[in-house]
Amino acid sequence: MSGNTPPAPPRPGTRRPGGRTARTRAAVRDAVLTGLVEYGYPGLTIEYVAEHSGVHKTTLYRRWGDLEGLVADALVLAGEDGWTPPDTGSLEGDLRSLAREVVQSFTDPAMGAPGSAIIAAAFQSERAADALRAYYAERFTRCEAIVERAVSRGELPAPADGIDAGALVRAVSAPIFFRLFITREPIDTLLADQAAAATLAAARAGVFTREGTPSS
Amino acid sequence: MSGNTPPAPPRPGTRRPGGRTARTRAAVRDAVLTGLVEYGYPGLTIEYVAEHSGVHKTTLYRRWGDLEGLVADALVLAGEDGWTPPDTGSLEGDLRSLAREVVQSFTDPAMGAPGSAIIAAAFQSERAADALRAYYAERFTRCEAIVERAVSRGELPAPADGIDAGALVRAVSAPIFFRLFITREPIDTLLADQAAAATLAAARAGVFTREGTPSS
Repeated sequence: MSGNTPPAPPRPGTRRPGGRTARTRAAVRDAVLTGLVEYGYPGLTIEYVAEHSGVHKTTLYRRWGDLEGLVADALVLAGEDGWTPPDTGSLEGDLRSLAREVVQSFTDPAMGAPGSAIIAAAFQSERAADALRAYYAERFTRCEAIVERAVSRGELPAPADGIDAGALVRAVSAPIFFRLFITREPIDTLLADQAAAATLAAARAGVFTREGTPSS
Repeated sequence: MSGNTPPAPPRPGTRRPGGRTARTRAAVRDAVLTGLVEYGYPGLTIEYVAEHSGVHKTTLYRRWGDLEGLVADALVLAGEDGWTPPDTGSLEGDLRSLAREVVQSFTDPAMGAPGSAIIAAAFQSERAADALRAYYAERFTRCEAIVERAVSRGELPAPADGIDAGALVRAVSAPIFFRLFITREPIDTLLADQAAAATLAAARAGVFTREGTPSS
C-alpha cells in the first residue's frame, strides 16, 4: 500500500498471512472498508460487517465494541505494514517519488476509495479521527528518514535548531490532498512534481526549521 | 468572511441587506449551515430547514428542489460577498496574511464549523462537491491578484510561459487544510507563517510555472 493512503482490501483470492485471529481481523477490516466505500460511515452497520466478513455479530461486538472501534482498528491494522518511504539517492528524487505515490494511490479507484472513505468517516466519528491522526503521525514519522538521509548526504543544511522534518514531508502531500478533498480539483503527475519541487525549494531556503519560519 | 472558509451564519439580530427574497434566501442558508453543523449532511432534513428558517417546506422544495440544492445554494450565496485578498504591499505580507486568515477562520468555532460541515457534506453529496469546487475556484481566482501585484512590483520573475498563479495561491492554504481535515493535527500562526514562507521560497525559485516544474 501507499505511504499516504489508508489501505485497500486485497483482491479476492489473496492468501492472508498469519493465523486464524489475524485472518479474522483482516476479513473484518476488508468488510469495514468495503462497507465504508459503498455506504459511507453513516450507512455502515454491524450487520453489514458481519455478513461480509463471515464473523458473527456477537464476536464483532465483543472484540471491537462498536462501529467506531471497527473503523479505528482498520486503520491500526493499516499501520502495521512494512511500508518504507522512497529511497532514490537524492532528496529531490525521494520527494517526487513520494508525491507521485500519493497521486497514483488516489488515481487508482481500488486503492483510493477506501482511503477517501476513511477520511470522510473522520468527519463523523471522533474515534475514526483519532485513528486517522495516529495513522498519519506514524506514517510521516517513517517519512522523516527522507530528511535524515538528505542531511547526511549534505543536501540540506542542518541548522543548530534542527530541521522540522515533519513539516517538510507533510508539505509534499498537502497540495494533493487539498485538491482531492477540499477544492475537489483534478490531480496528476505534474501536480505531484510541482509539490515536490516547491517543497525542495522551501527546504533549501531553510523554511522548515523547528523554531518557526525565517524572515526573508 | 474569510477568503477560504465557507460562511458562518451572522450572529442573531444581525440586520440583513436586500429585499424579502434576499432575506428568505439568507434565512434558509443560515438554517442549512446550522443544521449541517449540528447533524451533518446525513442528518439534515427539509423539516429542520423549514423550522429554523421559517420558510414553508413547499417553498423550499419549489425553489431549491431538495437538500442537495439547499446546500449548493448556501455555497453560491457565500461566493456572492465582497471579499478581496489581502493587499499589504508585498508578496510576503500578502501570503502570510492570507495563511493567517485561514488559520483564524478555522480556529474560531463560529466561523470554522460551517466551513468544516460543508467540506464534510461534499463527501456525501456530488452537488455539494460541485458547489465547493466552484466556490474555491472563484475564491482562488480572486487570490491571483496577489500574484499579479507581485509581478508588477518586480517581486517575482515573469517567465515567458507565465506563472501558475492558481497553484501559488493554493500552496499557501494547502498545509493548513491538510492538518485540519486529513492528518487531524493542530494548526496555529506558526504553521501559517511557515506555509507562507514555503510558498514564497518556491515562487522565487520559479516552481510555479504553467509548463510544470523546473528541474533543479
